[in-house]
Amino acid sequence: MNTLLQVDFDYSGPFGDEMAKMLKDLAESINHEPGMIWKIWTESEFEKLGGGIYLFEDPKSASAYLAMHSARLTKMGIENIRGRIFAVNSALSTINKGPIG
Amino acid sequence: MNTLLQVDFDYSGPFGDEMAKMLKDLAESINHEPGMIWKIWTESEFEKLGGGIYLFEDPKSASAYLAMHSARLTKMGIENIRGRIFAVNSALSTINKGPIG
Repeated sequence: MNTLLQVDFDYSGPFGDEMAKMLKDLAESINHEPGMIWKIWTESEFEKLGGGIYLFEDPKSASAYLAMHSARLTKMGIENIRGRIFAVNSALSTINKGPIG
Repeated sequence: MNTLLQVDFDYSGPFGDEMAKMLKDLAESINHEPGMIWKIWTESEFEKLGGGIYLFEDPKSASAYLAMHSARLTKMGIENIRGRIFAVNSALSTINKGPIG
């Protein structure tokens, strides 16, 4: 059952193209994480936040990734990490053209 | 510039099929909101949370929707509404097959 992982945290940059250049290798490595279907990279220069929205194949792979990713972010000095794992309501998401797999 | 809106709130059900039946008309109405591209409906029976991830055409339409939706949720008696508006990092999201429009 496809599972949504929502993560955000305090982040003061770099943003945009500079962030993309810096984190390209990390993004490529994420494609090899078990159960990962897609990730949208989110950022707010105004609110000083970074984050990601992920679709995983099941709750187990989302949960394993969240544990690994939280530890990695903490190691990078990042604070106030908020990760939430959600089921997807398929019937309602389909009405709203949600890309749920 | 496509913009991501992330919303979650305290929610104790109904979940799943029962929620889908109850909120079908609301989902259909969301397709007519200005600038809305897609919505994924999120729910966590375990953490007692509801929410949604939306892609909008621009920050202005995301912001207008968030104000309207927060007021609507509050009227339904829903508390602890957390809404965050993010830019999408297109280069990194493209690497991870993110459905960003």
